Amino acid sequence: MTKTRTPAPQTRGPSDHEVRNQIVEAATEFFGHYGYEKTTVSDLAKAIGFSKAYIYKFFDSKQAIGEVICSNRLSTIRLAIDEAVAGAPSASEQLRRMFKTLVEAGSQLFFQDRKLYDIATTSAGEAWPSARGYEEHVKSVIVQIVRDGRETGEFERKTPLDETAGAIYLVMRPYINPLLLQHNLEHAAEAAAQLSSLILRSLTP
Amino acid sequence: MTKTRTPAPQTRGPSDHEVRNQIVEAATEFFGHYGYEKTTVSDLAKAIGFSKAYIYKFFDSKQAIGEVICSNRLSTIRLAIDEAVAGAPSASEQLRRMFKTLVEAGSQLFFQDRKLYDIATTSAGEAWPSARGYEEHVKSVIVQIVRDGRETGEFERKTPLDETAGAIYLVMRPYINPLLLQHNLEHAAEAAAQLSSLILRSLTP
Repeated sequence: MTKTRTPAPQTRGPSDHEVRNQIVEAATEFFGHYGYEKTTVSDLAKAIGFSKAYIYKFFDSKQAIGEVICSNRLSTIRLAIDEAVAGAPSASEQLRRMFKTLVEAGSQLFFQDRKLYDIATTSAGEAWPSARGYEEHVKSVIVQIVRDGRETGEFERKTPLDETAGAIYLVMRPYINPLLLQHNLEHAAEAAAQLSSLILRSLTP
Repeated sequence: MTKTRTPAPQTRGPSDHEVRNQIVEAATEFFGHYGYEKTTVSDLAKAIGFSKAYIYKFFDSKQAIGEVICSNRLSTIRLAIDEAVAGAPSASEQLRRMFKTLVEAGSQLFFQDRKLYDIATTSAGEAWPSARGYEEHVKSVIVQIVRDGRETGEFERKTPLDETAGAIYLVMRPYINPLLLQHNLEHAAEAAAQLSSLILRSLTP
């Protein structure tokens, strides 16, 4: 499996991009089965039949692989949030659906891919770029919803926008951050509904 | 150190109550130094110079000792909350002070008695009676504050009292439950202030 950088795409086998994808796919399955924290790149290499050195040609570290897995999953959740918000008839409903979708996505990861949840907690605990990017996206969606609701007269406008959006994010954070969500899963859906109502009461003009 | 149950208080040394206190005091110091999770009653017995059997005469298990330590600490926090609320000039201010006191008490335990925080997380994770009792107390204080604010016309009265108080508790919970608080300590004081403002906006008549 010698690789050179000379451009001979037809003869040199799969592209770098394809190999990376192949490794990420195999690693997702591997970590999903054996967990992320307690396994090493050697374990992974052995399991997927690549040499450790070969994997290190494509990824600097285990975290670099974890980052891609995390980032893929978070992209899916971001899409789900954006879709939920886009289909809502009012800013209030946008907020409710956003919160509901967040809780559902997190709970699903926890209950269906328990071992991958490992990566999620690590990424949150160590503030990986993917986790920080996700947080920023959620915050920007909140700002947009509040702005929309203010424009239509649905929400009050006295409180500074930053303060309102920041506080709403804080209410949602225990259901967004996987380190916190794992202790909040019982009744999480009900909690999201109750908290949405409280937030909406706080936004009454 | 033979003990009998025959009533001869003058000659048999310290009362049961005194011995229990003595064990709890020594255990608080011991767990505060070596942690709760990874130590055993044998370790404790050795360290404080009692036999393990003697300790088991007074406490059924390590958890039974932990429960008393936990319960003592929670009584102190309950007192601090009650005092903070009692001195406030309005229901809004009661709510702000209560939340502030909760965060301060939790942060203090975490930063000053890091090893005892162990017991707090265990008690919350396993829902010990002391932890449940504390939760109930906090909830009842919230109900009382909301009721007071409704009576004076400070707060809205449309939402069912249970729903309002329940949702406020959910907002505060990540700063009350030590399992959650440990991931929320950064900016916890600021968060409590922002969340208090959001809650108060939600209570506007």
